[in-house]
Amino acid sequence: MYSLAELADHLGLAFTGDAQLTISGLASLRSAGPQDISFLSNKKYLTQLQSTAAAAVILSPEFAPVCPTACLLADDPYLALASASRLFDPFAGCGGIAPGVVIGVAAGAHVAAGAHVHSQAAVAAGAVVEATAVVECGAVIAAGAYIGHRCKVGPDCVVHPGAVLHSNVSLGRGCVVHSHAVIGSEGFGFARSARGWEKIHQLGGVRIGERVEIGACTTIDRGTLDDTVIEDGVIIDNQVQIGHNCHIGANTAIAGCTGLAGSSIVGANCTLAGGVGVVGHVEICDNVHVTGMTMVTRSITRPGSYSSGTRMEETAPWKRNAVRFSQLESMARRLAALQGRPDHTTEE
Amino acid sequence: MYSLAELADHLGLAFTGDAQLTISGLASLRSAGPQDISFLSNKKYLTQLQSTAAAAVILSPEFAPVCPTACLLADDPYLALASASRLFDPFAGCGGIAPGVVIGVAAGAHVAAGAHVHSQAAVAAGAVVEATAVVECGAVIAAGAYIGHRCKVGPDCVVHPGAVLHSNVSLGRGCVVHSHAVIGSEGFGFARSARGWEKIHQLGGVRIGERVEIGACTTIDRGTLDDTVIEDGVIIDNQVQIGHNCHIGANTAIAGCTGLAGSSIVGANCTLAGGVGVVGHVEICDNVHVTGMTMVTRSITRPGSYSSGTRMEETAPWKRNAVRFSQLESMARRLAALQGRPDHTTEE
Amino acid sequence: MYSLAELADHLGLAFTGDAQLTISGLASLRSAGPQDISFLSNKKYLTQLQSTAAAAVILSPEFAPVCPTACLLADDPYLALASASRLFDPFAGCGGIAPGVVIGVAAGAHVAAGAHVHSQAAVAAGAVVEATAVVECGAVIAAGAYIGHRCKVGPDCVVHPGAVLHSNVSLGRGCVVHSHAVIGSEGFGFARSARGWEKIHQLGGVRIGERVEIGACTTIDRGTLDDTVIEDGVIIDNQVQIGHNCHIGANTAIAGCTGLAGSSIVGANCTLAGGVGVVGHVEICDNVHVTGMTMVTRSITRPGSYSSGTRMEETAPWKRNAVRFSQLESMARRLAALQGRPDHTTEE
Repeated sequence: MYSLAELADHLGLAFTGDAQLTISGLASLRSAGPQDISFLSNKKYLTQLQSTAAAAVILSPEFAPVCPTACLLADDPYLALASASRLFDPFAGCGGIAPGVVIGVAAGAHVAAGAHVHSQAAVAAGAVVEATAVVECGAVIAAGAYIGHRCKVGPDCVVHPGAVLHSNVSLGRGCVVHSHAVIGSEGFGFARSARGWEKIHQLGGVRIGERVEIGACTTIDRGTLDDTVIEDGVIIDNQVQIGHNCHIGANTAIAGCTGLAGSSIVGANCTLAGGVGVVGHVEICDNVHVTGMTMVTRSITRPGSYSSGTRMEETAPWKRNAVRFSQLESMARRLAALQGRPDHTTEE
Repeated sequence: MYSLAELADHLGLAFTGDAQLTISGLASLRSAGPQDISFLSNKKYLTQLQSTAAAAVILSPEFAPVCPTACLLADDPYLALASASRLFDPFAGCGGIAPGVVIGVAAGAHVAAGAHVHSQAAVAAGAVVEATAVVECGAVIAAGAYIGHRCKVGPDCVVHPGAVLHSNVSLGRGCVVHSHAVIGSEGFGFARSARGWEKIHQLGGVRIGERVEIGACTTIDRGTLDDTVIEDGVIIDNQVQIGHNCHIGANTAIAGCTGLAGSSIVGANCTLAGGVGVVGHVEICDNVHVTGMTMVTRSITRPGSYSSGTRMEETAPWKRNAVRFSQLESMARRLAALQGRPDHTTEE
Repeated sequence: MYSLAELADHLGLAFTGDAQLTISGLASLRSAGPQDISFLSNKKYLTQLQSTAAAAVILSPEFAPVCPTACLLADDPYLALASASRLFDPFAGCGGIAPGVVIGVAAGAHVAAGAHVHSQAAVAAGAVVEATAVVECGAVIAAGAYIGHRCKVGPDCVVHPGAVLHSNVSLGRGCVVHSHAVIGSEGFGFARSARGWEKIHQLGGVRIGERVEIGACTTIDRGTLDDTVIEDGVIIDNQVQIGHNCHIGANTAIAGCTGLAGSSIVGANCTLAGGVGVVGHVEICDNVHVTGMTMVTRSITRPGSYSSGTRMEETAPWKRNAVRFSQLESMARRLAALQGRPDHTTEE
């Protein structure tokens, strides 16, 4: 429970309106009641601002004139929301596993002799920690999670229910691994022989920096000889696949359903949107954005935004246009002939 | 074991052939033996009809003349198959976990003090039910499944082995959650700051209606402030990702490997084919079909079918055409110039 | 520890350099030290060859002249790496679950009465084996894995932590199922009715041949009436979805994030690259390659390579070209008119 003035102080924001307003929660514009704050960061929701019952709204100063409530003025309302969401998360101190974190090894946890679990760490029922694993101070190993041989879970990490750290995986301080993520699985390395596929044994591990987030059902394979590396501050969404030997630079964000084949290198501060595919053995420099469902088939050496695919249309016209795509080479030649100019097959 | 006449009666279908035929099973046209029924719902398999050894075949009346066996005549043979498949499923009453459902809490299950598990529910070995969870009458929590804090599993739900309900997830009556689905995971909400990515704590839950099916390894994130909502009768295939704050309307079907970014709204009675991507903050109206691997990049306000992408070709001509795609803007301008007509960059 | 001559003999390779060199490990060109061997199979890494500190390098004879170290000469260096990786994997004999395989049923494993677990098999803590399951000699059921009713795990199979074999799944000799793979889940079979979707009960199973590899978080649905079939020597990467009733031919390779809808048939010795989608009820013949993120929308009857999609560009020109894609039908008609030739809508 805060007064508006106290809350503004906590968040480091200026405010308009009654300093004594009582604030007890955080809610969306549509759901907020008279003791809630809310936020506006996307203009799409301006109409919801008009009718909100919130006590106060976090928003950019430009929208204060049209806001019917008290205002918390933020240059970046979405960033201010991050701070506010932490204030109002009753389980912010429990790794988000509300409120089930009990320090120590629970009955029903399977911690092998030889495992090192810090006295201030938590291992829940059904979790398995293998003999040569290390779980450091403040780390939470939730129900059914698996911490394999030679793994190291750094201080204050949270490994959510069912997540698997296969072997030779190290997590730096403050990482979060969501449910059913699998880290350190065997890479897809096979050589063709006359008898079929011969497995390349994967002898490396996965080395993960600090404050890395790894989404639910995301898979990160261990390296073949060296380690797969995820640098500090990387955030990875659900259902992402990262192949063996990849290297992801600091603070890069990878959205859901994206897949990186083996030995790809992604720079720092990149953003890969959802459903992107990256072929193997390419290198993407720092500060690259790749739009949704793009296929990255070559290295990118210049910062900027990259895309592939076509735009959504109604299916009937799309079909007619898609047929013509198969005639493009012919169309281009015929057009050049009509113009009486030389034809060329590279981009202009 | 049924006679053909009894079976026709159970299924509410007319039949041709010997009413006393003995039917003991259901099999495909190719595998069926002389005591099995089979079905035909896709013309592709008409040649298999000719040679089937089945006793009788469920099919549309139009194919009865060419059917070499007794017929069960159905306006919608695939729908009739649904009824028949239930009749011949020995484990239809066991949540499909054949035949392992034992009412009560099994030895080796971890049910926290304070959890409410109905006396007619089943919790299997290795499953975890947290202290504030509720499991209602007839629900089955299979081996290794996790039911988190403040979750509610409605009557007659089946949560398959290894599925995770993270926290604040409610399932209505008769839902099925397949193995390793993760519901209620933290949404991918981060704000950029000078220090890197700041987490938006996800304070909402997931509210799921009645008779919803959720496929294996599918992930549904909890809402940021409000709940993520899946309405009654929605069916979701494997490996689907549904972002935080999404709202899926009743009876919509979502096929495998599809991903919805956060805050997207999908209407009722829609069908999203496999591998579709939907960007965030868009709205799709009722009765929309999206074809496979389409990227939905804007709201859809008119029922119909929508597509993107190109058609599959052999790689060699595809490469030549794909190069020309990068020249399309130039080609369009040159073509307009040749015609002496104004050029425009919007669709015709 | 080997001498170079011994190692060459083990690998069946000719060598150049000092036969008495001591070799104790295998590492990448960049990381190798003076007692390691390394390998070169991709020309991209030729510059790393120049500066490697390795004792010897496995490479093609053509690169021996530019190699600064002793050489192990291989016609197929990647295949030679497979053999070398096995030699230097300390846990090659433990199913890769280093070094945690203990024969027998561990304390904390849940093996139902009636399950048949061979005395030389291993079942780890937290694993569940149901009453009618069979686990054969040398098989490893890792922590938290689930072996359902009527499943058969063949000799020397490894089922990694958390993998689920739902029911009616049989694995031939020497298969590997990676973490959180789900095999035998219910297929996505529903018939539309006036009341919504009616479930087609899935009565089949999954029949998997010998030496099949199934990646982490991959899902393979059981058949509707017949079995889903994966033949000998198939290798499947992470996050792949294989629908009910599919049939995958021997030695086919399927890369990550690929999805096959139901009832699709893929021949032998095919390679599906990452992110490919295959619609239902199509048939792909033997020896087909499909490039990354292609959508296979029809049967393929001729061996070769197939593709769809467009090439990656910078987003600004891509947007202009993508707008023109929607004008392709119009452009083609106008071009034909300018040429005074008949227009046609099929490929040339």
